[in-house]
Amino acid sequence: MRINFDSDGLVPVIAQDYKTKKILMLAYADNEAVEMTKKTGFAHYYSRSRKKIWKKGEDSGHVQEVLSVLVDCDEDALVYLVNQTIGACHTGYDSCFYRTIDGEIVGEKVFDPDKVYAN
Amino acid sequence: MRINFDSDGLVPVIAQDYKTKKILMLAYADNEAVEMTKKTGFAHYYSRSRKKIWKKGEDSGHVQEVLSVLVDCDEDALVYLVNQTIGACHTGYDSCFYRTIDGEIVGEKVFDPDKVYAN
Repeated sequence: MRINFDSDGLVPVIAQDYKTKKILMLAYADNEAVEMTKKTGFAHYYSRSRKKIWKKGEDSGHVQEVLSVLVDCDEDALVYLVNQTIGACHTGYDSCFYRTIDGEIVGEKVFDPDKVYAN
Repeated sequence: MRINFDSDGLVPVIAQDYKTKKILMLAYADNEAVEMTKKTGFAHYYSRSRKKIWKKGEDSGHVQEVLSVLVDCDEDALVYLVNQTIGACHTGYDSCFYRTIDGEIVGEKVFDPDKVYAN
């Protein structure tokens, strides 16, 4: 399947828990990150701020095993269906989407970021 | 809750079915589209190709009633939790993510686009 990368060579990727169907995060991937994801079976993304590929969980251990990759009708967005270790968000929540637009907390805290990201 | 729009004034929005948890589509919104969504209770987006705000379903009738809007940790991505009328994708599938990256069809055809978008 072709992927239509944007002018920066990126495509938005939604990570979704394959069991709970919860949306975990939205990040970006370049072609190499998609290929590394397919090759290794673990989610890789491209960091727009650090300008490099990263493996989700490379520091925290909270990796995402990718069971399937979906493509949308326009071929310009992907879904990684994942088996998430511990939690997806660096804040300690299970999902990065842990708040409503009104600020209500709807996510579940699953780890203490001070312990995971210490040093 | 603040939203960090990108340099084009846009934020990616994931529409998710609030009952089935299926991811329906990924589109973009500007501040006005988000405000119209909150005000009307129906999903509005910004079309990057047509350079204007659109209400999902304005032509097809396949509107999205928005029950909740979620914001991610970086405040640069949104989820619309929606009650989708008929189907989300203009191809006739329930979701725009109806194929795997290997081309396997995993979505469900729920309407005939030739009938819905005729004339």
